[in-house]
Amino acid sequence: MKPNARILLGHGSGGRLSHELVTGVFIKKFENTVLAGLTDAAVFPLNANKLAFTTDSFVVNPLFFPGADIGKLAVAGTVNDLAVSGAKPLYLSASFILEEGLELDILEKVTDSMAREARQAGVMIVTGDTKVVEKGKCDKLFINTAGIGIFDETHRPLPSPENISSGDKILINGTIGDHGMAVMAARNELNLQSAISSDCASLNSLIESLSAQNISIKFMRDATRGGLGTVLCELCENRPFGVLINEETLPVKEQVRGVCELLGFDPLYVANEGKVVMVVGENDAAKALEIMLQHELGAEAAIIGEIVGDHPGKTWLKTAYGSTRMVDMLAGEQLPRIC
Amino acid sequence: MKPNARILLGHGSGGRLSHELVTGVFIKKFENTVLAGLTDAAVFPLNANKLAFTTDSFVVNPLFFPGADIGKLAVAGTVNDLAVSGAKPLYLSASFILEEGLELDILEKVTDSMAREARQAGVMIVTGDTKVVEKGKCDKLFINTAGIGIFDETHRPLPSPENISSGDKILINGTIGDHGMAVMAARNELNLQSAISSDCASLNSLIESLSAQNISIKFMRDATRGGLGTVLCELCENRPFGVLINEETLPVKEQVRGVCELLGFDPLYVANEGKVVMVVGENDAAKALEIMLQHELGAEAAIIGEIVGDHPGKTWLKTAYGSTRMVDMLAGEQLPRIC
Repeated sequence: MKPNARILLGHGSGGRLSHELVTGVFIKKFENTVLAGLTDAAVFPLNANKLAFTTDSFVVNPLFFPGADIGKLAVAGTVNDLAVSGAKPLYLSASFILEEGLELDILEKVTDSMAREARQAGVMIVTGDTKVVEKGKCDKLFINTAGIGIFDETHRPLPSPENISSGDKILINGTIGDHGMAVMAARNELNLQSAISSDCASLNSLIESLSAQNISIKFMRDATRGGLGTVLCELCENRPFGVLINEETLPVKEQVRGVCELLGFDPLYVANEGKVVMVVGENDAAKALEIMLQHELGAEAAIIGEIVGDHPGKTWLKTAYGSTRMVDMLAGEQLPRIC
Repeated sequence: MKPNARILLGHGSGGRLSHELVTGVFIKKFENTVLAGLTDAAVFPLNANKLAFTTDSFVVNPLFFPGADIGKLAVAGTVNDLAVSGAKPLYLSASFILEEGLELDILEKVTDSMAREARQAGVMIVTGDTKVVEKGKCDKLFINTAGIGIFDETHRPLPSPENISSGDKILINGTIGDHGMAVMAARNELNLQSAISSDCASLNSLIESLSAQNISIKFMRDATRGGLGTVLCELCENRPFGVLINEETLPVKEQVRGVCELLGFDPLYVANEGKVVMVVGENDAAKALEIMLQHELGAEAAIIGEIVGDHPGKTWLKTAYGSTRMVDMLAGEQLPRIC
């Protein structure tokens, strides 16, 4: 990274700048084989077990927004990072940084929400920490959750990206951009009257329903910061295949599309908090879609594209008008503090 | 907790108010058997293994101070929480909340320091996360580390507080109050010229050297926020025994004592980041002390007191003048943002 460089909001975007910071600083300093995998959760053996371990800090603004709040987000986000690695989420930690003067009611509401989501997802919050900083030294409340999951290879086939080949199908379990636009609309400065709800949800039960029915998932990732577009770019980056998605099949709520147009956002890059992108073999695709559609978190699931042999390493979008355009990784910060 | 209550700095002190927040909010909401243990690390079985899991957020101000920095602290602090639970620390996560505009050089120095301490302690940083908030919405840089350790019961006797009885000895591996006073002295507003260095260090190797020589540790805790005094109070609270310590045997550096007197602090409540308090049987005490003294992190170790049958649940200090006084848990916040 450049001398005298400074941290920009974009370094937290989940896009290109985040990627540079991770590879240019963290990976370099903390060099080890597990970290180098750069997956959402670290995976390592521990005696006879294989564990997944992940962490996320949450700084969303505002703390409460339609459909969820920072507490639900903090639990579901970490559950999802474990679940998309193929592990069964089990144990979470919860660490709070509180601003002096924060109303205790807010903390109560947030922790109620965490407890509810933990029960819902079947995980336990087993350890925690609290720090308090002086008024003005943080913004109300930040939460970190770390999580441990376990792999049970006898019961669940693990994602295996090396098996991806041309013709494989790409699925998503529902509409994109809901979370990002719900948070944006909830920010006071916007004065937007909107009924958009965050899609924030723990995806482990949906993912398990696919594994349980022997769908062989070749790749899965939750499309959070950076949106669907960034996940697709990362899926094929430096790989011998490309991605082609079809705009017409992308599930986007009318209201989300409207607010995106109003504000100049592309739903492809808007954060989700309850969406998983999957690659499955051509022969599994119809069955996988059917299973998703039957799950309450997959009612608007769709097959949105496929793996192609053309343009390896690149993601292309076939637009509704029949033209195609390249989808690049998010360059700067589209929506700061979205999670 | 009271209606309309607000978070005070003291809720982050590690003392009485922290205790109230943890039991009044977190334990109540996140109710489960593992969390209820209220130990520094959660301990739970995972198939054939027994794991320890812990988390800590670090908000120390300033980021750099004599003897350590926020990075070293973030690694050693989590290593120590695992080590005092009796586990062997193995894997750490690292999650950063960065303020927009932070000089990248600072992040480089901090992560260098984390990497160095992780190597020193023999742990791997295997997963991470970065969030960036707008300028003014956090104070430069906060770090969360969570950690996983494993219990190897065939090789290490585990702490067993239920075996504590009158006559057991209390040891500490060196001088108290160094960390807290080093950080205070480093704060710009004090203009103190001081040579006090933080004692920040990973204690797992010291602890292992005791276990390896079959010292049966009945209790151990690192004396961080809240200091030695708070650890002793927690050791005997609601137990059928009391604690009696001898002021004359308490290791305190002259400089630390001086700055404490100047600023009106009691070294008993000043934070340490490389000190472990242990209870061992009377017959093990001399050997335990000898092993500590031979370790570089135990050169100033001392037997500081004992478990007594009188005044159960209470901690008493025999002063240098021969009188005794009760040691209570830290009531408010003595030193905000000390870790």
